[in-house]
Amino acid sequence: MRARRERALAVAQRLGADGVLAADVSTVAWLTGFETDIESGPSPFALPPLAVVTPDGPPLLVVSEDDAPRIPDDCRACLYAGGTVEELDPVGGAIRALELATDGRMLASEPSFLSTTLASVLRIVDATAELRLVRAVKDPDEIDLLQAAVELCDVGQAEARAHVLPGISEIELWARVRGAMEQAAGGRIPVLADLASGPRTAETGGAPGLRVLTDGDLVICDLVPRLQGYWGDSCATLEVGEPAASARSKHRLVADALERGIEAVRPGVVAGDLDQLVRAGLDYPHHTGHGLGTSWHEEPRVVPGGRTRLEPGMALALEPGVYDGDGGVRLEQVVVVTEGGCTILSNHSLEL
Amino acid sequence: MRARRERALAVAQRLGADGVLAADVSTVAWLTGFETDIESGPSPFALPPLAVVTPDGPPLLVVSEDDAPRIPDDCRACLYAGGTVEELDPVGGAIRALELATDGRMLASEPSFLSTTLASVLRIVDATAELRLVRAVKDPDEIDLLQAAVELCDVGQAEARAHVLPGISEIELWARVRGAMEQAAGGRIPVLADLASGPRTAETGGAPGLRVLTDGDLVICDLVPRLQGYWGDSCATLEVGEPAASARSKHRLVADALERGIEAVRPGVVAGDLDQLVRAGLDYPHHTGHGLGTSWHEEPRVVPGGRTRLEPGMALALEPGVYDGDGGVRLEQVVVVTEGGCTILSNHSLEL
Repeated sequence: MRARRERALAVAQRLGADGVLAADVSTVAWLTGFETDIESGPSPFALPPLAVVTPDGPPLLVVSEDDAPRIPDDCRACLYAGGTVEELDPVGGAIRALELATDGRMLASEPSFLSTTLASVLRIVDATAELRLVRAVKDPDEIDLLQAAVELCDVGQAEARAHVLPGISEIELWARVRGAMEQAAGGRIPVLADLASGPRTAETGGAPGLRVLTDGDLVICDLVPRLQGYWGDSCATLEVGEPAASARSKHRLVADALERGIEAVRPGVVAGDLDQLVRAGLDYPHHTGHGLGTSWHEEPRVVPGGRTRLEPGMALALEPGVYDGDGGVRLEQVVVVTEGGCTILSNHSLEL
Repeated sequence: MRARRERALAVAQRLGADGVLAADVSTVAWLTGFETDIESGPSPFALPPLAVVTPDGPPLLVVSEDDAPRIPDDCRACLYAGGTVEELDPVGGAIRALELATDGRMLASEPSFLSTTLASVLRIVDATAELRLVRAVKDPDEIDLLQAAVELCDVGQAEARAHVLPGISEIELWARVRGAMEQAAGGRIPVLADLASGPRTAETGGAPGLRVLTDGDLVICDLVPRLQGYWGDSCATLEVGEPAASARSKHRLVADALERGIEAVRPGVVAGDLDQLVRAGLDYPHHTGHGLGTSWHEEPRVVPGGRTRLEPGMALALEPGVYDGDGGVRLEQVVVVTEGGCTILSNHSLEL
C-alpha cells in the first residue's frame, strides 16, 4: 500500500499539490483498501467516500458513521452522521468532515467524481488522468488480490460448465454461477456478467434472461466479480451438447488470437500494437482488452491506437471474439506483465 | 408520468426556474422512467444520467450512447459516446450534451448529485428538498410499479420460508431467495437484503454469510428488490424448527406494533406521531418506517419528531422490531395512504 501511496503523492507533487483527494471509489479503494458498497446505488444517508492522502500521516477517509466498522486499520477517518432517526443532512455532514480532513490544503483530485456542493471548501487541481496511469501498475499485494478475484471467476466458470445443459434457463444458470461464487467468497459480492445463449451470442452477449438452453446453443459466460475491492474478469464460450463444426472453427480462431496476444505481452509493448496483433484477421466490435484492478476497466486499454506502453506490474484482461450470424465466441484471460513477459492469473477452461 | 412532471415543474416555477435538471438517479427514474444500472458502480464510460424537464417538450435524457436502447419512448436524449474503442472522454461528452440539453436555462436541480466538472455550464437553483417532498406522493402508475416490486418481495419471502431448515447456510439460502426473485423478474435485478441468523438477529440483521442454520435460530429476512426502477421492501422473521416461547412473545409484540401502525395510517397523520404510536413499549434502534419509490428510503420518514404529514398516494414501509440478547424479530409491510386509511401492498406471511 505504501508504494502506491508514494506514487500518488509524487503525482500530487508534480502538480504542485500538497496531497491527494481521491474521489473515484476505485482510487479510494486503491489508496486505502476501503471497499465501497455499490449495489445499493447512491445512498440517502451519505455522499460517496473520499480519501485524503498526504505525506504527513495516515490516509483520512471522509465517510459516514455507517462505514466506521469497515475502515482499514492503517487509515483514520473524519466521520459524519449516516443512517439515523434524526434529520438527515449528509451533505452538510460531508462538507464539515471534508473541511477537517483537507485543512485548506491544495490537493490533486478527480473533480468529475466530486459533488458540486463540496466545491466551496476545496482547493484542487485535476489529476484524474495522471492517477489513472499510476493506478495501472500494481503492487505485489494488489496482484494477490487480483489473483483471488480471478479465482472466483474460475469458480463461476466451472459452475457454468457443469450446468450448461438443455432445459436450464439463462437466469437459472446465472443463479447457480453467482451462488457458487458467493459461496466461495463467503458472502455477497458484486458481479457483472454476460450470460447469453443462442442468437444473443452473435451480438457479443448480454445479461441472463428467461431463454432456455437447447442443444447446439453457444453460451457466452463473461464473469466480473469484485472481491476485497479488486475486480476479476474472465470469459469462456460453452456449447450445449456437441460443438458444431462452425463453432469449432470460430473457437479455434479466437483461441489462437488470445494465445498470440498473451505471447506478445511484455514490458515496452504499446497497447495499440498489441490490439492490432490480436485483432488481425478478426472483426470484433469491442476492445481487445483492458486493465483491471480496483475498477473493472482501466489502463492499459488495449484498443486501436492505444498509446500506453506496458510496464511490469500492469494487469490486463485480453478478450478477442468472433461474432457472426451463427453466434459468437469470446475467450478472456487475465495476465500480469512481468520483466520477461507475463503471468496468467486465469485458470478456467477455455474449451468449447 | 405527466402528473409528477407537472408537480416537479411547479416546484421549479416556485423557485424561479425554467425547468428541472434531475441529477439524483431516483429523480431521473421518477420523471422519465429511465432505470440506471447501479450494480456496476461508477462507470469509466459515462457520468451518472441526468434529465432535463421543461414545460415545452418531452424530457431530455443526458446519457451515453450505451444507454440509447433503454431510453423510454416518451423521452428524447442528448447522447455522448460511451464505451468505445476510441479515446474515452465521458466528461467532455457529458458537458457538451448537457449544454445542448439545458440551453442556458435556469433549472431547479439537485447539486449534491452533480459533478463539479459540470458546474461551468449550469445555471441552477437547489431544489433537492422540494423535489424529495413531491416525489413522496405517488401517481397511480407508480403504485402499480411498487405493487409489482412488493410482489417480488413476496416471492423471495416464500422461497426463504420454504428453505429455512437446519443445515443450510445463510449464503445458500440467499442464493435460493435471489434466484427465485430474479426468475420471477425475468432477469437480473438489484436486491438489498438483511439475511442473518442466530446471534446477528440481536444486532438487527446484516448480509448473509457462511453461518449454518441450526434448530432454534431466528432468521431475519429483509428483502429490497428494484424492478422497473421501483424498490419493494418487506421483512419477515423466521424460526428454524419450533419457535421458542421467548421468540413467540417478541413476535407478538412486533406484530401488534405493526398492526397498530397500519391501522393508524391515514391522511393528516404526522410521521413523528406515527413513529411514537408504533414504537410505544418497544426499543428498536432504527426508524419505524420510511417512504419508498424510485429510492429505497425517502419521505415520509417515520422517525421520532418526523414532521411530514401523510397524504393520499404516499407509500411507506413500516418495520418495527424487538432485539435482545436472545435474538431479534422484525416485521415489515408496505402500505399506500388512501383517502380513508391505507392499502397494504405486501402479501407475504408474517408468521414466525
